[in-house]
Amino acid sequence: MSRPIYDRVALIGLGLIASSMAHAMKKWGLAGSVAGHARTAETRAAALEIGFCDEVFETAAEAVKGADLVVLAVPVGAMRAVAEEIGPHLKPGATVTDVGSVKQAVVAAVAPHVPEGVHFVPGHPLAGTEHSGPHSGFATLFQNRWCLLVPANADPEAVARLRALWEGMGSYVDEMDAAHHDLVLAVTSHTPHLIAYTMVGVADHLSRVTESEVIKYSAAGFRDFTRIAASDPTMWRDVFLTNKEATLDILGRFTEELFVLQRAIRMGDGQHLHDYFTRTRAIRRGIIEAGQDTAAPDFGRTKSAGD
Amino acid sequence: MSRPIYDRVALIGLGLIASSMAHAMKKWGLAGSVAGHARTAETRAAALEIGFCDEVFETAAEAVKGADLVVLAVPVGAMRAVAEEIGPHLKPGATVTDVGSVKQAVVAAVAPHVPEGVHFVPGHPLAGTEHSGPHSGFATLFQNRWCLLVPANADPEAVARLRALWEGMGSYVDEMDAAHHDLVLAVTSHTPHLIAYTMVGVADHLSRVTESEVIKYSAAGFRDFTRIAASDPTMWRDVFLTNKEATLDILGRFTEELFVLQRAIRMGDGQHLHDYFTRTRAIRRGIIEAGQDTAAPDFGRTKSAGD
Repeated sequence: MSRPIYDRVALIGLGLIASSMAHAMKKWGLAGSVAGHARTAETRAAALEIGFCDEVFETAAEAVKGADLVVLAVPVGAMRAVAEEIGPHLKPGATVTDVGSVKQAVVAAVAPHVPEGVHFVPGHPLAGTEHSGPHSGFATLFQNRWCLLVPANADPEAVARLRALWEGMGSYVDEMDAAHHDLVLAVTSHTPHLIAYTMVGVADHLSRVTESEVIKYSAAGFRDFTRIAASDPTMWRDVFLTNKEATLDILGRFTEELFVLQRAIRMGDGQHLHDYFTRTRAIRRGIIEAGQDTAAPDFGRTKSAGD
Repeated sequence: MSRPIYDRVALIGLGLIASSMAHAMKKWGLAGSVAGHARTAETRAAALEIGFCDEVFETAAEAVKGADLVVLAVPVGAMRAVAEEIGPHLKPGATVTDVGSVKQAVVAAVAPHVPEGVHFVPGHPLAGTEHSGPHSGFATLFQNRWCLLVPANADPEAVARLRALWEGMGSYVDEMDAAHHDLVLAVTSHTPHLIAYTMVGVADHLSRVTESEVIKYSAAGFRDFTRIAASDPTMWRDVFLTNKEATLDILGRFTEELFVLQRAIRMGDGQHLHDYFTRTRAIRRGIIEAGQDTAAPDFGRTKSAGD
């Protein structure tokens, strides 16, 4: 095993992302030791029992003491309070990063509390599942997934070290500025999630179609929406509240575009629909070629009776 | 091997659904022989080469001769012409079914051409992948998936026999009337597909986000939309043109609902968003309990480096 990239890592928040990072850092020897903090005693106990943390602390302030890397892995709306609490306890020369889905709001909330001599390198791993909590993590969550860093003017050496950590966990790493990050994510993640939530809500309200019918007959497309719409409500509330402008921008474009297709249906304009559907196929091919999904049918679900 | 349910089955159209039916009927000994017709010589040759058809014919009229079961597996918009062509050649006592995603329009197109003494039992297997064509079929496509039959006043014995075929291929079978089918599918399939097409189209048009970024960073939710939006353009054009009323009804509800969430984002109403997202989680749990998906994270995709 090679030398760890960080001697001591502190994880603030112990949900899906943090627990997966801990599993990955242990599996590939990237951290000397892993300290953790979560608000509830139950989550802290789970972290010790599962074994992905070496130590847990009741407060974030205690957890970050002596840490070379501090990872803020709480919902975006909780970042400010955590940053304020840990600020005075950060070790000089340490790096602070986060894993929030929104970057401009996190920078605004956290940066003022990071003292001189501590490096702040915001980050966002584009990986996740519809599960949450300390039991949902696994070491390979970040394999072949992108991690976006938003270093702004951070120390290049601190950025390179954090990049090495993510690459060590199997990720590809890109850098961009916070505003561009938030726009790209509004398109590829935030708006799709809101739309999936909406479609599932519509189905739930429709009295002429029973819930049991919706559930039984979900295989025909709706199932993929329900998976997206099952994600953590607190995390997603915070995403929409803190990436408001980009999400509203993309939602406006989405509604315009939907109205054009709706009109084509109403008018019976089959050529328009066919042309549109043909163009969208090409993007899917690009995703398979880029290695972000498998070409196996239906996402490579097993075809066995136990599916 | 038990006695086949039908001595001779004719498949009109040899795409994903028909080829999967042929594979399944052969695997479980459900058909004595399988005849096929496709418009192109290339598809007919593929059916023989892959071996899921025993015989292929250049015309649908020839293919249905002597068949005990005729399966119309062409796009919904092509059903009327096929029915008109085969009507005079159907064997007395035979059953005609279809696998179209819309039922009222298919009944209107096909029923007038089915002669006295031939049973017409429309059907719709709720199964599929984003792939199409004769090479995309596999025997277990229908396992643990629902097949909806719309028998109206058809002969109960003919309905029971067709039900036995679908059950033999691993499906659950339900019966309902055509109008209800079209509404249920507008909610669980047609509108979700239109929305996915739209979101992929929005991403494609957004010049500030390059296509390569959309593709690289798709793992964060967008990927599931692109899979849905990669489905066969001709099939989906016909679905929207022929299930116009139910789709426009559900789209109207969707837009209303989306505007309410959009307003909550604009107003910063976090409680509304959190409550909404919490409710939609329950539907997902129902789908897993109903066996229509796996509880494994991220759809049970393999977590290996080759993912």
